[in-house]
Amino acid sequence: MTPEPCDLSAVAARAAIAAGRLTAVALAESCLARIAAREPEVSAFAALDADLWRTQAARVDAAGCPGPLGGLPVGIKDLAATRDWPTGCGSPIYAGVRMPFDAAVVSLARAAGAAVAGKTVTTEFAAFHPGPTRNPRDLSRTPGGSSSGSAAAVAAGMLPLAVGTQTAGSIVRPAAYCGVVGYKPSFGTVDPTGIKPYATSLDTVGVLARGVADCRLFVAAVSGVPLDPPRGALPRLGLCGSPAWELADPAMRRAFAEDLPRRLAAAGIAAVPCELPPLYAEAMAAQRTVMAWESARCLAFEAEVHGERLSAALRDALAAGRALDPATVREAYACRDAAIAELPRHLAAAGVAALVTPAAPGVAPPFAAGTGSPDFNRLWTLLRGPCVAVPGLACADTGLPLGIQVVAPPGADALALALAERVMAAV
Amino acid sequence: MTPEPCDLSAVAARAAIAAGRLTAVALAESCLARIAAREPEVSAFAALDADLWRTQAARVDAAGCPGPLGGLPVGIKDLAATRDWPTGCGSPIYAGVRMPFDAAVVSLARAAGAAVAGKTVTTEFAAFHPGPTRNPRDLSRTPGGSSSGSAAAVAAGMLPLAVGTQTAGSIVRPAAYCGVVGYKPSFGTVDPTGIKPYATSLDTVGVLARGVADCRLFVAAVSGVPLDPPRGALPRLGLCGSPAWELADPAMRRAFAEDLPRRLAAAGIAAVPCELPPLYAEAMAAQRTVMAWESARCLAFEAEVHGERLSAALRDALAAGRALDPATVREAYACRDAAIAELPRHLAAAGVAALVTPAAPGVAPPFAAGTGSPDFNRLWTLLRGPCVAVPGLACADTGLPLGIQVVAPPGADALALALAERVMAAV
Repeated sequence: MTPEPCDLSAVAARAAIAAGRLTAVALAESCLARIAAREPEVSAFAALDADLWRTQAARVDAAGCPGPLGGLPVGIKDLAATRDWPTGCGSPIYAGVRMPFDAAVVSLARAAGAAVAGKTVTTEFAAFHPGPTRNPRDLSRTPGGSSSGSAAAVAAGMLPLAVGTQTAGSIVRPAAYCGVVGYKPSFGTVDPTGIKPYATSLDTVGVLARGVADCRLFVAAVSGVPLDPPRGALPRLGLCGSPAWELADPAMRRAFAEDLPRRLAAAGIAAVPCELPPLYAEAMAAQRTVMAWESARCLAFEAEVHGERLSAALRDALAAGRALDPATVREAYACRDAAIAELPRHLAAAGVAALVTPAAPGVAPPFAAGTGSPDFNRLWTLLRGPCVAVPGLACADTGLPLGIQVVAPPGADALALALAERVMAAV
Repeated sequence: MTPEPCDLSAVAARAAIAAGRLTAVALAESCLARIAAREPEVSAFAALDADLWRTQAARVDAAGCPGPLGGLPVGIKDLAATRDWPTGCGSPIYAGVRMPFDAAVVSLARAAGAAVAGKTVTTEFAAFHPGPTRNPRDLSRTPGGSSSGSAAAVAAGMLPLAVGTQTAGSIVRPAAYCGVVGYKPSFGTVDPTGIKPYATSLDTVGVLARGVADCRLFVAAVSGVPLDPPRGALPRLGLCGSPAWELADPAMRRAFAEDLPRRLAAAGIAAVPCELPPLYAEAMAAQRTVMAWESARCLAFEAEVHGERLSAALRDALAAGRALDPATVREAYACRDAAIAELPRHLAAAGVAALVTPAAPGVAPPFAAGTGSPDFNRLWTLLRGPCVAVPGLACADTGLPLGIQVVAPPGADALALALAERVMAAV
């Protein structure tokens, strides 16, 4: 049976378009049909305009679908400015607001041949307060956040690609909960211009998709950074519970400590246990300090002028950031700098080039419980390197996805993607 | 003779307000009178609304002028988003555009008690294409750029404080040409949210004023970072021509190599010659690569949708950034990282803690020649540490200001300010 075009990976859809077997318009129509079927229960979109999507797709087709993303639809997290759709940032403060420009990633995706499909739901300013999106694998559960709509749309086959952003765990965690791939590149790889900041030294633009190669394709296209797999044999992986290990639930512990090593071994992937020194537990805590301090400044306008329209949780977080002692903050940045500087040495001493570690504490929590914990993500975001969420493991009881991630030092994106691809094939 | 309130330093004006000898409204009126006298020939403002300024000042007075900036007017470079004034970014693309929020620095300044005076002229997107602003010291000359209006307004006594941004030399150079103090803090000190980016790893928010203490007051207030002078004796300064030395004109060479050491010695300030290894000449070139690469991404929307409304120079710069070889870019970032890592060691080996170096090649060029060269600034912006432009030296022939700057490694802001204050008193 031929798959629906909307279920193709971005890479497969791009190949079909390049071979003349698929058009941008036909792909858009297939996605729109899936959206018609699933969106009423999933609520992945903050703004969708089918005719605008079709018009763009037709224009791309008319031009011959040039560019590495030629003809592919991409969803844009509603934290990114767009002229043609409102930019709500998941907050009533900006509901319906039209920006006078597109975020850089939107223009760069369009320049690479993509058709923008619409805006995907974000939590309030990419923080904790959830949007309406449900997890397409189990509608009673959260898709995770803050890139909730991007993860859900990709998981439900509504879109092959959707932009996400991560400040603590906002790409990798929803990818894990929805059973898709999420790629947070090294800090600064994709330009963040026009995306509402939450913490400027942490905010990172990335992508969600159903395959690692799809993520590589998209980020290489919008960043200009080549991400082709390194030549030669891939180096050994470190299996690392991370300083958050005590927060993993039993299903994740079992999957990570038993299923994963077995499957890697069966696939012939070299992997060894790897512990991190105490500095990394301190760095995990330092991320909270850095995020709180910076968010209190990034959102100074909203706190000053629209304080009563913020969620209570966000208002409290910003107040906590304003109340921080500058000496504590300085220590947190110093801890980050030391942890970044030491990581390559620690990995080299362990004879590994990248780590595999849980992407979340377990399966997606119930919808009413919030978007889940970023505690398995915040350290790696602070350290600025690539994080690639890999689906494939599942909870033995519920069958729900349990995500793991490949992480590496800043700049090792091509390697992390290549390793993630191998791990995904193995699990 | 009592000085006009508009000629007071920010620190002196703040003290007068705190002592009940001056009100925010009286200070605004004094500045408005100076603006009425000088603005027709200087053109420092992109947007000014006297009644809005007065209303804000009256509100601050009614509240008792609380906060470290209580009652002080501040000009905002027109690259920063504001709801109450248009945000033109020095480009016809955004002429008259109203943003739905204020940049973080605007809200943070207001929360610290400041009254926003209006928007100051920027070059086109903080790049090369000049605005209408003239140098108040000599109307036939450029004020420098890109923070042209902020430097000119402060130099002419129209404002005691004005926000600037620097990507190559956009705070320090105009400060030098206009004979005022310009402070570019360590990267990330002042939150850049809501300010149009040009190159996200370089863009830094800072301030222009007539005294070093004014700059300290403002940046401490909006960042929350304490910048009080370090206790005890100040360390030795290094006198460093920098890798740009060959580009200095004869007046600067004489002032820097002869006048400056003599005046420092006369003031009892310890200073020794200091050379930088060849890595720093490479880093100076790397800054060009980083800036071109990042600006092509930051301004992707404007290039795609409004290309014909960009200046030819900016269009060419963005095209050059798009055409860069990714391997060259990777080398430039690696060079930057090495230069940042090595700087504290080089300074320690020379027995100094900070450097004094020219802030510009010479005096302000003629208006028609553009906003001058940032070649004495780009290295220090790349290295992410504090840069404090210090006025006081002058060209023997024209009497026009020749600026020098104190630079130090990232995080050494309090030290750089303290040293700059001593150097300013000496020259």
